[in-house]
Amino acid sequence: MNPSPSRPRIAVDAMGGDFGPHVVVPGAVQAAKRKQLDLLLVGDEPRIAAELSKLDTRGIVVRVVHATQVAEMHDKPSEALRRKKDSSIQVACNLIRDGQADGIISAGNTGVVLACSLFTLGRMDGVDRPALATILPTERAPLVLVDAGANVDCKAINLLQFGIMADVMARLLLHRPEPEVAILSNGEEEGKGNQLVKEAFELFKHSSLNFVGNIEGRDLFTGEVDVVVCDGFVGNVVIKQAEGLASSLGRLLKGELRRGFFAKIGTTLALSALKRFSRLMDYAEYGGAPLLGLKGTVIVGHGASNQKAIANAVDMAGTLISLKAPELLKEGLAANKDFAHFLKRPASAE
Amino acid sequence: MNPSPSRPRIAVDAMGGDFGPHVVVPGAVQAAKRKQLDLLLVGDEPRIAAELSKLDTRGIVVRVVHATQVAEMHDKPSEALRRKKDSSIQVACNLIRDGQADGIISAGNTGVVLACSLFTLGRMDGVDRPALATILPTERAPLVLVDAGANVDCKAINLLQFGIMADVMARLLLHRPEPEVAILSNGEEEGKGNQLVKEAFELFKHSSLNFVGNIEGRDLFTGEVDVVVCDGFVGNVVIKQAEGLASSLGRLLKGELRRGFFAKIGTTLALSALKRFSRLMDYAEYGGAPLLGLKGTVIVGHGASNQKAIANAVDMAGTLISLKAPELLKEGLAANKDFAHFLKRPASAE
Repeated sequence: MNPSPSRPRIAVDAMGGDFGPHVVVPGAVQAAKRKQLDLLLVGDEPRIAAELSKLDTRGIVVRVVHATQVAEMHDKPSEALRRKKDSSIQVACNLIRDGQADGIISAGNTGVVLACSLFTLGRMDGVDRPALATILPTERAPLVLVDAGANVDCKAINLLQFGIMADVMARLLLHRPEPEVAILSNGEEEGKGNQLVKEAFELFKHSSLNFVGNIEGRDLFTGEVDVVVCDGFVGNVVIKQAEGLASSLGRLLKGELRRGFFAKIGTTLALSALKRFSRLMDYAEYGGAPLLGLKGTVIVGHGASNQKAIANAVDMAGTLISLKAPELLKEGLAANKDFAHFLKRPASAE
Repeated sequence: MNPSPSRPRIAVDAMGGDFGPHVVVPGAVQAAKRKQLDLLLVGDEPRIAAELSKLDTRGIVVRVVHATQVAEMHDKPSEALRRKKDSSIQVACNLIRDGQADGIISAGNTGVVLACSLFTLGRMDGVDRPALATILPTERAPLVLVDAGANVDCKAINLLQFGIMADVMARLLLHRPEPEVAILSNGEEEGKGNQLVKEAFELFKHSSLNFVGNIEGRDLFTGEVDVVVCDGFVGNVVIKQAEGLASSLGRLLKGELRRGFFAKIGTTLALSALKRFSRLMDYAEYGGAPLLGLKGTVIVGHGASNQKAIANAVDMAGTLISLKAPELLKEGLAANKDFAHFLKRPASAE
């Protein structure tokens, strides 16, 4: 098949994640077939070709783009930028810059993806700092949490921009026609929060967003709002705590079930219930995390991504491009550009 | 019985918590009998007397101290200070100030307890801001998390003081001879964190504490350290998220068990396992949260405290007084007083 101008072209970092091409290549091919996407698989050509040879790629367009280097999980972003100019992540970013791809996904080092994409693609107008959005499961329906860890020290205007961009994600990825947006704080009432949250509250109130106020940590998982905004330090702690607590409770429950009454009737039945329960906290369901505010669609996958998670992350990139996310992000940011003067205020959180 | 100079004298806010004297009075009496404590029950005398008349108080010293007002959960601390000078919380604080009590416990409005105790008792030498410590359950053994919500904007020196005080709590309440102290951050490596955490890391490294570095959100509940330090905004989000996520997962699991295989063999068995599992996240097990850095032992109880939680909070106050917590806190702070010059540095988080 030949490339089609109507199909999203996704550059996939085949070397990313804990399992590399062995998992990334079949995951990407799976998504490309499902969603009619053109693939550019970036990384070590022989290894990618070996994986491709095991798969049926009829009906999709796949091109392999060789990259001689790999950014490792322990690489510092600044050093990777300088010393690994031919890493699969950097080469994937170059493909967007050069108009050969519409989006990229990488399950590699998040810091390196952020640095390479920021340096190579640049920021959208009206965005001071790109942010990582993540889809968080809740009791009802998933929500978008932003910033999940890209910016550890933020100003109020950054949080507003994060909220505007996450609002678009909730519309496109979660099908919410008018997303309810909240700020994560230590109390629901206006006036609660640290200095950053109090200042952001004022901006959100006057923005175009459907802002519903503060939300507390205890209500994060009940699913009452569609978008939750916080700085990247808090967001990182929240996401990792959720992952950690779910595994801890799972392990404890497994112990309880094995030890208790259920031992008598067989652990198989109990573990089947536990498995369904764990799935609710399974990030693979939601694929990757969009890196918002760059000139190009960039999706970061979890390092531990399995084939399904990679497929869903590639799928997410395709969906965002098909639904014209970049244009909608621009519109959202433009509608709130009157807040630009807040940028000139002295920073409160620095 | 007559008061004994060797027994800790605990002033108990009998009006605090969602259930008032009906739950607080029997809880306090239970602890006093168990641990040989003298009680001062503060609040509406007739209501307290009515509850006492239902109980066997032989063998303990109980005195009722009348207070005409009650600070409600929605009261603002500043207004309660001005307009409710005869609230049970304020009167309990006065009892410490006047040398009639050694400690107080209240399951009332945390902000009002903080304001009244700070205003009435004052801060210990070497403490700039009192902090709320809480005992967090983990997979292995509980740990001390500080600050659980008293200070939403902190400086690095505040975090160090929190750590020094929480270290004493881990020794006395959790029986750890040399507590391992960590800072909550977005990555384990030195150099990870927001500006506040990076600055605090430097101070902790040079302190007398057994500082083991940063800990991530995902490792909060594995129980690898004894003390976790963070600012009160992050601490509040973490505690409330843990409570919320545990209830959400409990509800989901209940649904799964009812819906699945277990319906056939009876939900009673399944719910019995779930109950044991929930107990692991039951704060009543650990009683109250010590408010650290005041001239006097102050314990804050959960608003939803049941009788057992009140008893454990009163017990905690008695334990801290018996084990000479105030003296040990002074020693810990004095051993790190060389850091006082950091107070003169410009604040990073303000």
